[in-house]
Amino acid sequence: MKREFLTSIPPDKALEIIKSFQVTQGREMIHIEAALDRVLAEDIVSGEDIPSFSRSLVDGYAVKVKDTQGAKETNPSLLFVNGEVRVGEESTIAVKDGNAISITTGAMLPENANGVIMEEHARRLHDEIEVTRPVFRGENICFKGEDIKKGERLKVRGERLSPFDLGVCAALGMSKIPVYKRPKIAIISSGDEIVDIDEPPPAGTVRDINKYTVANLLKKEGARCDFLGTAKDTIQDIMAKLEAAREYEMILVSGGSSKGERDFIVDAIEKLGGKILFHGVNIKPGKPVIFGALWDKPVFGLPGHPVSCIMVVIRFVLPLLMKLKGELQTAARKMKGILATNVPSSYGIEEYIRVTIKSTDEGYTISPLFAKSSVISSLAQAAGYIVVPEGLEGYEKGEEVEVFVW
Amino acid sequence: MKREFLTSIPPDKALEIIKSFQVTQGREMIHIEAALDRVLAEDIVSGEDIPSFSRSLVDGYAVKVKDTQGAKETNPSLLFVNGEVRVGEESTIAVKDGNAISITTGAMLPENANGVIMEEHARRLHDEIEVTRPVFRGENICFKGEDIKKGERLKVRGERLSPFDLGVCAALGMSKIPVYKRPKIAIISSGDEIVDIDEPPPAGTVRDINKYTVANLLKKEGARCDFLGTAKDTIQDIMAKLEAAREYEMILVSGGSSKGERDFIVDAIEKLGGKILFHGVNIKPGKPVIFGALWDKPVFGLPGHPVSCIMVVIRFVLPLLMKLKGELQTAARKMKGILATNVPSSYGIEEYIRVTIKSTDEGYTISPLFAKSSVISSLAQAAGYIVVPEGLEGYEKGEEVEVFVW
Repeated sequence: MKREFLTSIPPDKALEIIKSFQVTQGREMIHIEAALDRVLAEDIVSGEDIPSFSRSLVDGYAVKVKDTQGAKETNPSLLFVNGEVRVGEESTIAVKDGNAISITTGAMLPENANGVIMEEHARRLHDEIEVTRPVFRGENICFKGEDIKKGERLKVRGERLSPFDLGVCAALGMSKIPVYKRPKIAIISSGDEIVDIDEPPPAGTVRDINKYTVANLLKKEGARCDFLGTAKDTIQDIMAKLEAAREYEMILVSGGSSKGERDFIVDAIEKLGGKILFHGVNIKPGKPVIFGALWDKPVFGLPGHPVSCIMVVIRFVLPLLMKLKGELQTAARKMKGILATNVPSSYGIEEYIRVTIKSTDEGYTISPLFAKSSVISSLAQAAGYIVVPEGLEGYEKGEEVEVFVW
Repeated sequence: MKREFLTSIPPDKALEIIKSFQVTQGREMIHIEAALDRVLAEDIVSGEDIPSFSRSLVDGYAVKVKDTQGAKETNPSLLFVNGEVRVGEESTIAVKDGNAISITTGAMLPENANGVIMEEHARRLHDEIEVTRPVFRGENICFKGEDIKKGERLKVRGERLSPFDLGVCAALGMSKIPVYKRPKIAIISSGDEIVDIDEPPPAGTVRDINKYTVANLLKKEGARCDFLGTAKDTIQDIMAKLEAAREYEMILVSGGSSKGERDFIVDAIEKLGGKILFHGVNIKPGKPVIFGALWDKPVFGLPGHPVSCIMVVIRFVLPLLMKLKGELQTAARKMKGILATNVPSSYGIEEYIRVTIKSTDEGYTISPLFAKSSVISSLAQAAGYIVVPEGLEGYEKGEEVEVFVW
């Protein structure tokens, strides 16, 4: 009867089991237009210098800087303008001693030029300009390779592509980008009490919440999720839904609030030839989480209470999703603040407390939301959560704590 | 010649003009499956209590708490188990004095019960249980309306729907949700030097970067972007591209690095009957930004240099996008850290410095990237930017500064 309580393991041990689960990632080449937030399957190493030619950063005149040495308002340098180079064109003329070439922003620097004087700092007189201050070497030039050097490693495999990264890809002419495939995840609800949101719930039943919170959390992290339906509390029905999930890369069965329901999930996984790797972790909420391997794929039994379910997804499912995506694990978004009240907790269990954050003159004030784990509205109200480690019996008002921001 | 320099305005003034631009938002009802990150067009007010009935939070026995008063290991209360209520079923029996009803997690609380004792804390003997400690009122019960009360305002118009908010919508049975339409934005590139990334760039030309960075930044914020092509540097070509953008809710013309190019954009907008609202803002990079109204829609001329272009999008285009989306303006993501070097800046101009952030034992170290505004790789390397206000001539090494995180 108390199987899960006997075998509960510490959260770090659970995470170790999850992270050592062997997965393989598929790869694909996708068009740059569709690459936002995708994960790189190869390093990006530049095959060329960017810019591919030295360019003027301003509208003005390309010069040899030595010709402007000592120039001042009272003793300007006089340079003959012997040509023009326009943006988008190849520059075919060279700057000669004592000469200047008119140039627009972004245009190719003429040969022999090593500085550009801004239009505003040169007085044009017919075919000549008066330069009233010295131009320094490299002034107003973006040199060939100054942005990106040929051979430079710009991004590494496992990084997620931001809008700016895609700008780098565009600069390099990468219209196709090698990325990992987005993992396909099957979501199954279970429980005789769970009904779809389209119908009015009969007495004693509740609408399915976890299907939406879980699918959208995973979707936000780049997974493709399919909902495979709600299983009744029978081994047969759960087995049938699991069978339908055979081609997915991860399987999540939510539900199993009661001991009996959880046993059905465990039994269904085992009857299909799967193996339970742990059942029960010393966390609150989320203790009755199930993790196993089925057809060599990871399968989770998520607790039925909406908050418990979400905390298990955040703590255990997302790290595995990162692995399935081939994404490098990044640090969680965290911030520090001062607790507004005491937070009691139990020794020997890692507890997650939903909190709100208020900005004050002195910093941030963190207030716990002491709602039950069945209360979905508390998740929507919270800005994130704090963790009370297994070895602590809580925090005191006024203590500085770290908030994991959703 | 120096038109933009004469008319440059302070950034706050520019933002005021942008934010007072009159826009209207379309609305639509969408299915909950597609509602992630969409913006609510109406408040969400609950039409019912959630849960709709009081539920047990554990597997155990529903009791009248008075029947367990004074119970202890040496003097247990003996209760007769006269029924069972299972999850998903309507409870039709009531708890009588001295009785208990077997109940599973999530099941409907029987009438007259006001506490539930966990299975682990009750000893079952045939048809009776021994309760070895008092049950407190409400113990292990989630009461009707405890999660959400009928009439409760849960979210307000203009809030963006998170996975947890969608959980709340699911709990309320909202399979369709009223949201604002996603704004449609036209992106036009301009410049004789700009070529598409699919072709090898001829001498003197560069690949289009801004098209990708701008479109993806806006896409990340929920806009639908169409790229309408690259205009050559002629008034006619720019006008033709603008004409094609007539049905969009915002128009962005990127390019215009040189004075001549910018004048083409201004002239094209005016020739089509539009009005320039400002041309030039005291910011660096991004100074030559153009903002106007064309067919009562907002139109931006974005600077050509990739970094200048992006800073204008972040500083001016995104706030207007929030307005077009109907989204409440939210605080920027910010963090504080200590400057690793001096940051010189010019008085009278608001300057944006890209920075990297390094976590140390003492907090965060902020290092500026002093790359030119044409250098796209510096954007991809940076974690965010700091702002040197118009009234300051920079910051000193060791000063605490606030970083706007991308």
